[in-house]
Amino acid sequence: METLTTNIKHMLGALVAQGVTDFVVSPGSRSTPVALLLAELAANKQAVKVLVDVDERSAGFLALGIAKNTKKPVVLLATSGTATANYLPAVAEASISHIPLIILTTDRPTELQGIGAPQTINQNQLYGSHAKHFIQLDLQLQHPDNTEYIDYRMQQVVYLASKAPAGVIQVNLPLRKPLMPALQTRWPQILPQRFLTGKKMLTIADVTDLIKVLTQQKVLILVGPDEEQLNRDLLLKLSEKYQIPVIADALSSVRPGINVINGIDVLLEADVIPKDLIPDVTFRFGATPVSARVLPWLKQNDVKVYQIGENFVGKDHSRFAQISVDVDSNQLLAQLLAQPGTPTKTENAYLAGWLALSDNFKKLVTQNTVLTEPTIAQAMKNLPSKAQLFVANSMPIRDIDNYLWPENELKIIGNRGANGIDGTISSAVGIATNGQPTYLLIGDLTLFHDMNGLKLVDLLGINLTIIVINNNGGGIFSFLPQAQAKDYFNELFGTPLNLEIAKIAQLYAGEYKCISTLPSLTAELQKVPKGLKLIEIVSQRDKNVLVHQALVTKIKQELNN
Amino acid sequence: METLTTNIKHMLGALVAQGVTDFVVSPGSRSTPVALLLAELAANKQAVKVLVDVDERSAGFLALGIAKNTKKPVVLLATSGTATANYLPAVAEASISHIPLIILTTDRPTELQGIGAPQTINQNQLYGSHAKHFIQLDLQLQHPDNTEYIDYRMQQVVYLASKAPAGVIQVNLPLRKPLMPALQTRWPQILPQRFLTGKKMLTIADVTDLIKVLTQQKVLILVGPDEEQLNRDLLLKLSEKYQIPVIADALSSVRPGINVINGIDVLLEADVIPKDLIPDVTFRFGATPVSARVLPWLKQNDVKVYQIGENFVGKDHSRFAQISVDVDSNQLLAQLLAQPGTPTKTENAYLAGWLALSDNFKKLVTQNTVLTEPTIAQAMKNLPSKAQLFVANSMPIRDIDNYLWPENELKIIGNRGANGIDGTISSAVGIATNGQPTYLLIGDLTLFHDMNGLKLVDLLGINLTIIVINNNGGGIFSFLPQAQAKDYFNELFGTPLNLEIAKIAQLYAGEYKCISTLPSLTAELQKVPKGLKLIEIVSQRDKNVLVHQALVTKIKQELNN
Repeated sequence: METLTTNIKHMLGALVAQGVTDFVVSPGSRSTPVALLLAELAANKQAVKVLVDVDERSAGFLALGIAKNTKKPVVLLATSGTATANYLPAVAEASISHIPLIILTTDRPTELQGIGAPQTINQNQLYGSHAKHFIQLDLQLQHPDNTEYIDYRMQQVVYLASKAPAGVIQVNLPLRKPLMPALQTRWPQILPQRFLTGKKMLTIADVTDLIKVLTQQKVLILVGPDEEQLNRDLLLKLSEKYQIPVIADALSSVRPGINVINGIDVLLEADVIPKDLIPDVTFRFGATPVSARVLPWLKQNDVKVYQIGENFVGKDHSRFAQISVDVDSNQLLAQLLAQPGTPTKTENAYLAGWLALSDNFKKLVTQNTVLTEPTIAQAMKNLPSKAQLFVANSMPIRDIDNYLWPENELKIIGNRGANGIDGTISSAVGIATNGQPTYLLIGDLTLFHDMNGLKLVDLLGINLTIIVINNNGGGIFSFLPQAQAKDYFNELFGTPLNLEIAKIAQLYAGEYKCISTLPSLTAELQKVPKGLKLIEIVSQRDKNVLVHQALVTKIKQELNN
Repeated sequence: METLTTNIKHMLGALVAQGVTDFVVSPGSRSTPVALLLAELAANKQAVKVLVDVDERSAGFLALGIAKNTKKPVVLLATSGTATANYLPAVAEASISHIPLIILTTDRPTELQGIGAPQTINQNQLYGSHAKHFIQLDLQLQHPDNTEYIDYRMQQVVYLASKAPAGVIQVNLPLRKPLMPALQTRWPQILPQRFLTGKKMLTIADVTDLIKVLTQQKVLILVGPDEEQLNRDLLLKLSEKYQIPVIADALSSVRPGINVINGIDVLLEADVIPKDLIPDVTFRFGATPVSARVLPWLKQNDVKVYQIGENFVGKDHSRFAQISVDVDSNQLLAQLLAQPGTPTKTENAYLAGWLALSDNFKKLVTQNTVLTEPTIAQAMKNLPSKAQLFVANSMPIRDIDNYLWPENELKIIGNRGANGIDGTISSAVGIATNGQPTYLLIGDLTLFHDMNGLKLVDLLGINLTIIVINNNGGGIFSFLPQAQAKDYFNELFGTPLNLEIAKIAQLYAGEYKCISTLPSLTAELQKVPKGLKLIEIVSQRDKNVLVHQALVTKIKQELNN
């Protein structure tokens, strides 16, 4: 009961925090706890208005009318079963006329679905294409992440319903008995309006506020994988003007550059970032970073995060970004740079600290002349200028993110939407069709997954050099907890394929080279691709884990202050 | 207007023919032609009852009430837009309580969908999981196939709505103006109840009728690919008892057997089946035959077709089967055989004619000792007893269907649901996991498509011999009209891959053999698979077309009476 009450309060609180004021309720049994707590909220908060309409079909059209006035999402609440189906006519109308509605459909609990329970219809995606999104929340799951998720998700729902083209979102809420909430208990504090809704251009006042932040606080810029053609020059100019360190993801297209820091993931793993380098504020650009550690670190240290960019609003799986700005990133950068006045910031020590750390880190990890998976990643700096490097998922992208400092202009590309290992060769061939010198860094398992893609190199007359790190199987799993399950590990995760890369090269009429030293790899990488070439570097999964561990230990020892 | 009128009459006529009597109409503009013609039908046909209810939500529940009485599908008719959405509550109720409803949702024409036209909502799959099926008909398309399709499909819809678990079917009907139908014109004749609805077991009377057919008429049994584990013995016993020729698909698991005829497709292509061998009645078992010619031939000759088997009701894309019996095929065979009394049929000349044709055909096409794609198919008779032969789609399955007379017990398997060329090797490996000697007959393009599947042979410790007909590309396209487009043909359809099969064998550590004579192929096929073996037979696409054409010419010359 306590969990249910807490979660419903978060759900309703988040709706109101993000700007919702109007609710239309069609009473019923299953919706009891939501209805009661909503009544309590309305009794205590003047801005919240609740209307009751017993016929759900009518209620849907009533909510539509209110939203036509306010241009803000109106929330509907119904009990389970055919009651929820009655909204469809109003949903269809709202969808086409771009009226934001949020429909809370309470439902029978999941354990009663589809097995003949009374009053239980399939409410999953009930409004089909007429709702913009369908989400389902578990209000009875007791887990701190869940409550935080409800907060974040419901604010996101308000944003999504309002974002052009505005429309309808169904939030399905399975609930099991007992349904009575605890009344007259404390309501939680919810972050105020987290999403700057639908603003394509910030106001002068907004920009002035941001400038204040840039000049008066310790700021960090974090750039994830680039999918919006972020203007690198503008970003680096901003960094220079306000002396801001830039943590740049391997796929950010921002490396190399003044103030650009590499390897955040391994620096965090080694725990060598001093307290005084922790920023007050972070401006986050781009998609989810390759580093899995950087967002939790910001959260732990309670750094205020502004997430910038129209593609990324509500896409912070750390559920921590306090403000998401729906704005064209390049336009915002230009606005910030256009602002007159000189920065008055004085924390040069802060930037200097970051740069010193970065420098020492680079010196330390680039000493090694032995061929290992990390030094393979480093060696990619030898690729010719204007080369394109497609990096496969799993280990290669992680090593590139931590250990590659490009020296020439280098475009780094990967498939980091869903991080799959499928179709990698075909994607790299797609990249290579533009005629630029193209390289692919890939493990043997990922290579095997799309081996047919090699045929395209010949059929389409492509030039592609593939660097295959052959550790005979799924190398990344050796870093994960399942590596402990020795009896089953190799069959289920290691999956050694015993591929003979030379024979693959033969089959696809490609050149083949086996490399075992760093200088010979360097020499190979300087060559411009011609037809298909497979460069095999044999690695060992167990040894690779040790190599990575030793590196972390070394960083810990040398860079700890 | 004439087309619209004709098609609506067929749609309504088919509903009534299959047993619908009750209609509930909520009037509106878009549904005008259907409503008017329905009124005309009801005026002329006492059994047809039409009720009007202006509120669609209410109409839905009214229809539900009627269907609860009659246990037969009730048809609802609505105009376009949110009107249709009002049915959802009743649809949800009907779906769960298994009440058959057929919902005709008239719609704005396709050219107005999704581009801002008024009163146009997305009616596609409007009731989501609450409708069993969604179909869309074009009532304004003037094409004889379309009208026939409407007939067949609407009878099928009645069947599907009634079949357990009974439920709701949405039939969406986009209509463009002008919407006025022609009234007081002639109504078409529609086949009476085509689908024997939901009968798991035939009555004695039904069986007696069928026995009458078996004894008094020229009957043919046509067996398509087996997916219901048809009892071969029962089927052949029935054929023997009533002296019925059996046209058995390569995938029917009925070959070889007394009275079993091979190669219907090429016999029809050569046009050598005499008029007196055309049956009066055909009993069709199994899925859609590999032969594309056999169903049109039955239709052209107006042969009465009974389609048997619970998987296949409504699955006659020739739209010709007059009766589909929803019955377990083996149960029906047992019932027919259990029926006492001796057959009185005297058309032994009919069966003898078929067997003579079959015999002459076999003699003719098995004379050839040159290695060609057809003789490769024939050579599969040399596989060891209890072998399993997986046959790839495209040309291999066609040649096997026409030219293979197995001599040992041979299980022939293919993927003939969607006839794809993808995943063939992996499927064959799946078949081979049962440990029986397994062979795969496949073309080079299909082999390439799933080449990664070869890795499984080693990883799973499978024994598999693959016979690769390497004609360097998509051989089947050379038989199709696009072969005339010489300028683009090879790039778009021929798609030569220049695969080196020997290198593939090397890569996957398989044995490799190149075969160029029939005796050496025969010798190879007698060997039991051990590990992976690739047997390559080089063929030429152009020459293969000529080989097939020459065979047809020879059959035409020698077997024409």
